Amino acid sequence: MIKIGFVTVSDRASKGEYEDLGGPAMQSWMSHAIKNEWQAIAKVIPDEQQQIESALIELEEQGCCLIVTTGGTGPAPRDVTPEATEAVCQKILDGFGEQMRAVSLKFVPTAILSRQIAGIRNRCLILNLPGKPSAIDDCLNAVFPAIPYCIDLIEGPYIEANEHVVKAFRPKHAKKPTDA
Amino acid sequence: MIKIGFVTVSDRASKGEYEDLGGPAMQSWMSHAIKNEWQAIAKVIPDEQQQIESALIELEEQGCCLIVTTGGTGPAPRDVTPEATEAVCQKILDGFGEQMRAVSLKFVPTAILSRQIAGIRNRCLILNLPGKPSAIDDCLNAVFPAIPYCIDLIEGPYIEANEHVVKAFRPKHAKKPTDA
Amino acid sequence: MIKIGFVTVSDRASKGEYEDLGGPAMQSWMSHAIKNEWQAIAKVIPDEQQQIESALIELEEQGCCLIVTTGGTGPAPRDVTPEATEAVCQKILDGFGEQMRAVSLKFVPTAILSRQIAGIRNRCLILNLPGKPSAIDDCLNAVFPAIPYCIDLIEGPYIEANEHVVKAFRPKHAKKPTDA
Repeated sequence: MIKIGFVTVSDRASKGEYEDLGGPAMQSWMSHAIKNEWQAIAKVIPDEQQQIESALIELEEQGCCLIVTTGGTGPAPRDVTPEATEAVCQKILDGFGEQMRAVSLKFVPTAILSRQIAGIRNRCLILNLPGKPSAIDDCLNAVFPAIPYCIDLIEGPYIEANEHVVKAFRPKHAKKPTDA
Repeated sequence: MIKIGFVTVSDRASKGEYEDLGGPAMQSWMSHAIKNEWQAIAKVIPDEQQQIESALIELEEQGCCLIVTTGGTGPAPRDVTPEATEAVCQKILDGFGEQMRAVSLKFVPTAILSRQIAGIRNRCLILNLPGKPSAIDDCLNAVFPAIPYCIDLIEGPYIEANEHVVKAFRPKHAKKPTDA
Repeated sequence: MIKIGFVTVSDRASKGEYEDLGGPAMQSWMSHAIKNEWQAIAKVIPDEQQQIESALIELEEQGCCLIVTTGGTGPAPRDVTPEATEAVCQKILDGFGEQMRAVSLKFVPTAILSRQIAGIRNRCLILNLPGKPSAIDDCLNAVFPAIPYCIDLIEGPYIEANEHVVKAFRPKHAKKPTDA
């Protein structure tokens, strides 16, 4: 069973002072895009680097092949999601942050303030997304086509996309597990 | 009073062998773009990492909410402005460097040689700009729209732009200090 | 005499289980693009960080002003070419990786998975290229125009390009060695 982790990073949402909109937006996007059966594991935590790191490690150890986060990627002192992500990853994939900022820049000039990154921890891809639901959709529409093949390369499960929502791209030589 | 630091990094300009063109170009751009009253603090120093770090720290301690540098961002051995900037910042905002290079790339293919970065030290945004005055203008035209909101987020003063020169962008939910 | 290093990083190619296509593709591109006489030094090594670092150091010590690598830049555990490159360089030039990904993104959405970087070790520019020959050509067509001037700035030899293949860009104030 494919497992995906959803981490909402927000001081206010974690205290219940604010409704978590980012977490449900990420889950809703995935439920439309992924064709396989999959299971969601969701967490809502405050903007504390240590707690974010623990949440990411725990979700990876529970077998998630993909973890997406929302919130905490700006320049403010409490924004530490990228720091936590970098600390638990073995490799950083700069192309994700570059493309998400390039896409967001078409909508708002403040896109350059986002420090969103993506990286690999063992067999799990961790991806920082913005806090705002519409920006989450813009970013996932842009980068998701590369995610299933990325997960193939780190020996995770074979993810199939709903082609009418988003197309997963794999090079011609890439094999389905049944061909292996 | 809003304070802005201007640091010209150049061995030759600091010895008086060469006229500092970058420093005045940055000040001139800001004087057209910023509507509030503000005070400039300018320094001209050699390409020495330790001296650049000290200058940046001093300007931040004097209350600058924004420091712009010119020079020292290329691949040559004496180019150490980004190294000094990174050493004194708590957070690096990769989007600034990416956008400045993307904009400069429209003019010259050697834009990819620039290692310009931006980062946050306490309540101050530090931004590396190129050495050439026309390239300074191109970069500031591109990234300035995001700067006032960035300074809001790090709890600095509320900067207003002269809209006929450049538009500062703030999300709709952003508050003026009078609304707070 | 201008020396250029070519490093093919591949477990299978280094064992002879697979024909090295990337190395010859890089050499062929350079032989069309560079007008000066130059000498190639080629190596084929496995995806081992220590061996890649040793190969890069050795080629730089042998006097290469440019080293290009092929392979090992993806997200898989055995992909360590960027890690080795970063470890032996004094400066990283983020603009190269950004532009190569931006160009590759026009062809395949999985371009964001590439972690290709470029950096400076002493008087040598080291550049990671993709594994696939057609992608090598796309990347070199995009970034080569900036390479001769980059090598000027690090005090390497004056490289001249065959203008009907690719144009080297130098700012107007840049001097030929004969003008110095």
